[in-house]
Amino acid sequence: MPHIDLPEGLPGIRGLFEFRPDTTKPLCELAHILLHEPSTLSPGERELIATYVSSQNDCEYCQSSHGATAACHLGGDEELVSQVKSDFEKATVSPKMKALLAVAGKVQRGGKNVLPEDVERARRHGATDMEIHDTVLIAAAFCMYNRYVDGLATLLPQDPGTFQERARSIAQNGYK
Amino acid sequence: MPHIDLPEGLPGIRGLFEFRPDTTKPLCELAHILLHEPSTLSPGERELIATYVSSQNDCEYCQSSHGATAACHLGGDEELVSQVKSDFEKATVSPKMKALLAVAGKVQRGGKNVLPEDVERARRHGATDMEIHDTVLIAAAFCMYNRYVDGLATLLPQDPGTFQERARSIAQNGYK
Repeated sequence: MPHIDLPEGLPGIRGLFEFRPDTTKPLCELAHILLHEPSTLSPGERELIATYVSSQNDCEYCQSSHGATAACHLGGDEELVSQVKSDFEKATVSPKMKALLAVAGKVQRGGKNVLPEDVERARRHGATDMEIHDTVLIAAAFCMYNRYVDGLATLLPQDPGTFQERARSIAQNGYK
Repeated sequence: MPHIDLPEGLPGIRGLFEFRPDTTKPLCELAHILLHEPSTLSPGERELIATYVSSQNDCEYCQSSHGATAACHLGGDEELVSQVKSDFEKATVSPKMKALLAVAGKVQRGGKNVLPEDVERARRHGATDMEIHDTVLIAAAFCMYNRYVDGLATLLPQDPGTFQERARSIAQNGYK
């Protein structure tokens, strides 16, 4: 049961978005810019970072919803999403993505864990300052969204199929 | 040295705000709503929550800047800010604030740490659903801001007095 009285039938962050519309606006805007607006990292790559961080934070709702959106962007490749969550160093992603996922994993455990050599590795594989910035901010932001969703004990959807359904709409329209 | 090429002379999150103005807008809006706009928790109480979480995340920049803003709201009581950071259960804050700080501390360590009894304690001391919600979201948001600031290895200001200067302006005008 959620820790506060949330509107029924809206699992995860969706009930929270209804509960406090004022904060919903910047929270959705931030996700929209970081995950959906044009970037040299593809939406699929950015959703993979969000999914990986959410899985490291053990947030079932966020790793399922962003995992579904990642798969949607990646031609339905759910196997790749699973690989990234279980061991991204062995996943079939680019060396640049592996380096960025490593940075994201460091951020998840605390900002000071990111070392010059982590950033150097990303840069060696072609990551730009903006890509490094966005990776850190996506990872940091999901440390927020995950804690928001689980810190108020929101519920999972009764039908897991709703993740796929919503993912198709989000992959097309983003988070606004 | 910061991990990416940031504008000079702007320490902490300020250089990041210049680097990526698109994401700055929702990041500032969120802080403004959570910490400055009208609420049944005073701005001083909310800044104390932000300061406490930042100190638990060992983020020097954020605990100094929000600690200075908290003190500003609390009539210059820097001793109280120190007490809250070192042992809030013994600090001269209300039983409701102690319960909310305990919830914030649980969120900092991960959303699932917040238990029904933590929320029950806050409620017993008069906390409303909105206050519990905002405490969780402030704590979650500072898990983001702290990681953003430290994950990119931003610098501290050379003159610590700038924290007090800026705090006066922020206490008056907020974060927009």
